[in-house]
Amino acid sequence: MKYNRIYNFNAGPAALPLEVLEEIKESFLNFDSSGMSITEISHRSKWFDDVINDAAARTKRLLNLDDKFHILFIQGGASMQFCMIPMNFLSGDKPADYVDTGTWSTKAIKEAQIQGKSVKVVASSEDKNYSYIPQDISFSADAAFVHITSNNTIKGTQWAAFPDTKGVPLIADMSSDIMSRPFDADQFGFIYAGAQKNIGPAGVSMAIIRDDFLNMVPDTLPSMLKYSTYAAKNSMYNTPPCFTIYTIQLVLKWLEETIGGLDKMESLNREKGQLIYNFLDSSDYYQATAQADSRSLMNVTFRLPNEDLEKRFVQEALENNLGGLKGHRSVGGCRASIYNATSLEAVETLVDFMKNFAGKNG
Amino acid sequence: MKYNRIYNFNAGPAALPLEVLEEIKESFLNFDSSGMSITEISHRSKWFDDVINDAAARTKRLLNLDDKFHILFIQGGASMQFCMIPMNFLSGDKPADYVDTGTWSTKAIKEAQIQGKSVKVVASSEDKNYSYIPQDISFSADAAFVHITSNNTIKGTQWAAFPDTKGVPLIADMSSDIMSRPFDADQFGFIYAGAQKNIGPAGVSMAIIRDDFLNMVPDTLPSMLKYSTYAAKNSMYNTPPCFTIYTIQLVLKWLEETIGGLDKMESLNREKGQLIYNFLDSSDYYQATAQADSRSLMNVTFRLPNEDLEKRFVQEALENNLGGLKGHRSVGGCRASIYNATSLEAVETLVDFMKNFAGKNG
Repeated sequence: MKYNRIYNFNAGPAALPLEVLEEIKESFLNFDSSGMSITEISHRSKWFDDVINDAAARTKRLLNLDDKFHILFIQGGASMQFCMIPMNFLSGDKPADYVDTGTWSTKAIKEAQIQGKSVKVVASSEDKNYSYIPQDISFSADAAFVHITSNNTIKGTQWAAFPDTKGVPLIADMSSDIMSRPFDADQFGFIYAGAQKNIGPAGVSMAIIRDDFLNMVPDTLPSMLKYSTYAAKNSMYNTPPCFTIYTIQLVLKWLEETIGGLDKMESLNREKGQLIYNFLDSSDYYQATAQADSRSLMNVTFRLPNEDLEKRFVQEALENNLGGLKGHRSVGGCRASIYNATSLEAVETLVDFMKNFAGKNG
Repeated sequence: MKYNRIYNFNAGPAALPLEVLEEIKESFLNFDSSGMSITEISHRSKWFDDVINDAAARTKRLLNLDDKFHILFIQGGASMQFCMIPMNFLSGDKPADYVDTGTWSTKAIKEAQIQGKSVKVVASSEDKNYSYIPQDISFSADAAFVHITSNNTIKGTQWAAFPDTKGVPLIADMSSDIMSRPFDADQFGFIYAGAQKNIGPAGVSMAIIRDDFLNMVPDTLPSMLKYSTYAAKNSMYNTPPCFTIYTIQLVLKWLEETIGGLDKMESLNREKGQLIYNFLDSSDYYQATAQADSRSLMNVTFRLPNEDLEKRFVQEALENNLGGLKGHRSVGGCRASIYNATSLEAVETLVDFMKNFAGKNG
């Protein structure tokens, strides 16, 4: 491979488009004729204004968002959002509904409960080790919001369609599938996503907040924990993580200009997903762990006949330049994360390797 | 200049050592033979473990810290620390003393007060537009800590020596002068610094916490707002800002191996400071704004005869490849930030330019 790079199936931080990395490298000592690195320019400069405004504008175009939505960049990862969401949106009497689809949902619930907020877990797939997305959920009519995790990196499940909440606004953690497919944002009050899977390096979350959710933020919170602070200051109340936001801008440009938008991205992601899931379904050697109707197009989780073979599989894959195939330490097994930046060629190479490995170790 | 770079006097994000930038660029498409960019490797990998552990080890060596101190990396900038400090260290009955030396101190005080914490402002230099560091302060014997800002980027002042607090632990915001000089850490319970001035790009704060301060953290806080979460998980409870921490590692390596440690760094910083302050003192045209005994070796603030000349000065300086000399928007005037990575040559070039400008516009 070019530059001796490998096929990267990491769950996050994850593969970035090579042309994005090449552009960062090319401009790294002198960004846009500024005479400075992107890591050295002032966030109060025309240069950085252009970067952050372009990143926000591309987000709105790609997701087809109208002006009631505001794009924020907030440090601390999705885990910081788990605690900011109840602080900002549950200061009144209303309770919130949460759906528990595994590790990250569970953490979001815990961070609301530790604050003494009124939280109802309206559905959970814990009974089957979170291998499916719950359906036919009864939501609370009086809830301030319904919280879901749109894609579950560890368990390899994904909401194929978002639930009908009968008018209660949705909040979604889209950390691991934002920008992987188009969706109708109108039922969402708030969307958030740690960058390090589909849109950039680690170090920032993108948040999308609707006007009425912005109005729910209590004045009494510390400045850095209020969404209104970020909205009022274009995410520059204090120094933002400039390099990370710059990389996001380039990834979004790649999505718009090289890929051609989210319809095309989704087609490509479906093609990649079908290739590997069809292979898994045709194999007696490998076993996909998620239920067929709940499978993630981002994180493909599977098992081999035993743990020794799984260890050998991960090791031999790496020797063949296929990296990051070990399952999350909490569940074991194997996982191929095939986010936007993972090419069809990478997935084809992986499936070929899997065939060979099964043939030799069957 | 090499790569058409300029002399960068930005207040933050600020200049980084060129050899650090060159190393990042060189390895950007394939970090340490991993086949991945530093932005694409897993934080749960041997590669990143080596990065974060080396950054922490170098911090401890450079600052001569023993094992009662722990090095943490936390997102959100110093502004996030303003709210985390009272949450973590003022959960009991004890009040805290704060010294107000301008903008950032004032914000730290406000973020404690908004939480209803018992805060006493024991000294302030507001009476003279924060142009000096208060001396002979009476601290409260029962305070949990005394909070100071060691260097004030906007007002151009710096604590030449830390105050004797009669045994009450100090907390210092060292965002703009950490690693610029050695100091005795023993009287400090907690130290924090946004990276983007002296140690790296924007996107992370370094925090140094002493065992007894770690023990003050209440269990009831959300996970991401507790220092104990970061200490227990080597700052990897969730995905850390890997690229930013990697850059910090390289800056600290440069400090140790190229500069030769903090004694040498301080000598160089004193030489740079003397050069420009001696020139300012010898000039009738320029006026240093900070009192002589309180001058910052990091941010040199000065005025010209009038605002029109200041505007022209900043503009003509940039045309001569001297960037970032505009004072903070809240105070006006001019400011040359001469952090660790700003070379003696840069300061010499600036002083030459200032002489010429005064000659032509006197």
